[in-house]
Amino acid sequence: MSENIVIAGGGVIGLSVAWRAAAAGHRVRLVDPEPGRGASWVAGGMLAPVTEAWPGEEDTLDLGQESLRRWPGFAEDLAADGGDPGLSLAGTVVVAHDSADAEQLRVLGEYLVALGRSAESLTGRELGRLVPGLSVRSGLSVPGDLAVDNRKLLTALLAAARKRGVEFVPREVTGIRPGAVVAGAELRCDAVVIAAGARSGRLHPALAGLVRPLKGEILRLKPARGCLPPPDRTVRAVVEGRPIYLVPRADGEIVLGATQYEAGFDEAVTAKGVRELLEGAERVFPAIAEYELTEIAAGLRAASVDTLPVLGELEPGVLAATGHHRNGLLLAPVTADAVLAMLGGAPLPPHVGPTAPARAHSMIPEGA
Amino acid sequence: MSENIVIAGGGVIGLSVAWRAAAAGHRVRLVDPEPGRGASWVAGGMLAPVTEAWPGEEDTLDLGQESLRRWPGFAEDLAADGGDPGLSLAGTVVVAHDSADAEQLRVLGEYLVALGRSAESLTGRELGRLVPGLSVRSGLSVPGDLAVDNRKLLTALLAAARKRGVEFVPREVTGIRPGAVVAGAELRCDAVVIAAGARSGRLHPALAGLVRPLKGEILRLKPARGCLPPPDRTVRAVVEGRPIYLVPRADGEIVLGATQYEAGFDEAVTAKGVRELLEGAERVFPAIAEYELTEIAAGLRAASVDTLPVLGELEPGVLAATGHHRNGLLLAPVTADAVLAMLGGAPLPPHVGPTAPARAHSMIPEGA
Repeated sequence: MSENIVIAGGGVIGLSVAWRAAAAGHRVRLVDPEPGRGASWVAGGMLAPVTEAWPGEEDTLDLGQESLRRWPGFAEDLAADGGDPGLSLAGTVVVAHDSADAEQLRVLGEYLVALGRSAESLTGRELGRLVPGLSVRSGLSVPGDLAVDNRKLLTALLAAARKRGVEFVPREVTGIRPGAVVAGAELRCDAVVIAAGARSGRLHPALAGLVRPLKGEILRLKPARGCLPPPDRTVRAVVEGRPIYLVPRADGEIVLGATQYEAGFDEAVTAKGVRELLEGAERVFPAIAEYELTEIAAGLRAASVDTLPVLGELEPGVLAATGHHRNGLLLAPVTADAVLAMLGGAPLPPHVGPTAPARAHSMIPEGA
Repeated sequence: MSENIVIAGGGVIGLSVAWRAAAAGHRVRLVDPEPGRGASWVAGGMLAPVTEAWPGEEDTLDLGQESLRRWPGFAEDLAADGGDPGLSLAGTVVVAHDSADAEQLRVLGEYLVALGRSAESLTGRELGRLVPGLSVRSGLSVPGDLAVDNRKLLTALLAAARKRGVEFVPREVTGIRPGAVVAGAELRCDAVVIAAGARSGRLHPALAGLVRPLKGEILRLKPARGCLPPPDRTVRAVVEGRPIYLVPRADGEIVLGATQYEAGFDEAVTAKGVRELLEGAERVFPAIAEYELTEIAAGLRAASVDTLPVLGELEPGVLAATGHHRNGLLLAPVTADAVLAMLGGAPLPPHVGPTAPARAHSMIPEGA
């Protein structure tokens, strides 16, 4: 049955839901003062459920793996409707610079092998041959963890949504209730989808405390003439306890991320964040010292209490698709499919079960 | 006698000469595709002949001191014609972080005292009381070294030049000869002034090899809420052999500079340059770590062979006012006055003598 849907938020989640819902025949309006920007615009673009995994977060890993399986089809459909999103199949290496980092990586490697995931341990020398310019002690190669060009993806989603008839309302959402979204005027509808990222917690009482901003700073760099070219695949590392990643883009640029701070809604790029990212990157890939620094930026991820997103009905006619933490780009396909199922009244597949909004309320720390 | 003058270059030197020459009654055209930008826009704004001094560079110190004496009058005239240039009288401290830096500073201090300059040695504790937040071993207070807000200065110079009737020609200069400047069309005139900064060496054979680009990277930062406020005066330091400076602006911003590279006409901001500036600044003023990094930029100084500018006649009707090295803002008043004297056929004052173009040819390294 065709419904009249309003989506609050035009990041990668809101746009993916809008595109898929419009393609399925629903009437869709998407409300965002600047669709295609926000945290999605500042993302690194890793589609990396395995190398993001950590013991105790198996639900996140399962959901991520399920979404990653859907990514090639999602990218193919998107290429047909809106343009190539720049999916890279080159894989990921996770590297350790010193013995403490190597120990942390050993724990991750053993955990992944125990789960039956594809992860190959490599020496520093082997890694240097695989990815010229890496200066590391040891590492893991995880060929299944991929990457996407976040800005190409957003551009393609905007075009695909427009092609499928999504109406864009360039306003700030100030209120939500069953059957209506307030954004300057009141937009009446059958169903609201809250996909407002870090700001979702302000839009519905059931999300307050569940979703909070988690600042991340990223840099963009490109090799100067005569420099060693960027790595051909994603490189992740933990340097002095801080995670960093280098994600190459097809045009030769590198996205270097990402810091994590609890800083409220502050989106300032800090001196220390930039210094730490550059130091960490030079440590594992020294040639980056001579690269041109072309952009510094910060975004607010929608952190959730347990790293799982919040997907489901908050009350009749109000759905949440938010709290994707560091995994918004990865989880876009599985999220869009889940929202479509909910709109159609279909049962949710089992991998989405742990994301139900109700599970999270018991997890909010007292006083939050 | 009123002359018809064309000035090639609209940085701080070209604009100062244009304003002063037009105010003196000359017809002035200034040719620059983007006047008020270039290296002057990226400068730190120090007016610091004393703390820039080094044994063996006495001519540079004398010229700088002479120009600094003219700065208050220059700023007052400019405020009347074009607006307040943001001259700060707060002074400068030069600080040492470790024992090697302290030794270098001791040499500078003894040299300054021997020259009879005002420079007071201070302990780290004394400096911490004078400038809260400084974390240093020792230092020198040099109250006579000042600073100007380079962007306010450029804005004021543009307005003052317009008010005095300077005609702006927004084109690139491609050729110069006695009696004419080629910039798309040919601009005929009585005298040409070459004030094209790092690009001056390309505009006249007598400047080739004398003036070369010297890249400098600078950052701009501002305190986040709750941060310690910036120092109230210019702070200079040498950290691990690399000079850095922090120059506060009246609006709370800090300009952090400056790297120095021989990199041809490349204006890319490098990863290493930014990392070193941030590291150095955190070392002497740790609170800056939490500041917001609002801008990264690079400019090309017009380096000369001996740090002195090139001021004088290259051939009849062609004057040079370029090669100001790290001192373009400081030397703008004395340069404008010298060019005015030359245009009027007046004898040059003695402090300008060492800047004669002829002196420099013997100093060009063989093969350059």
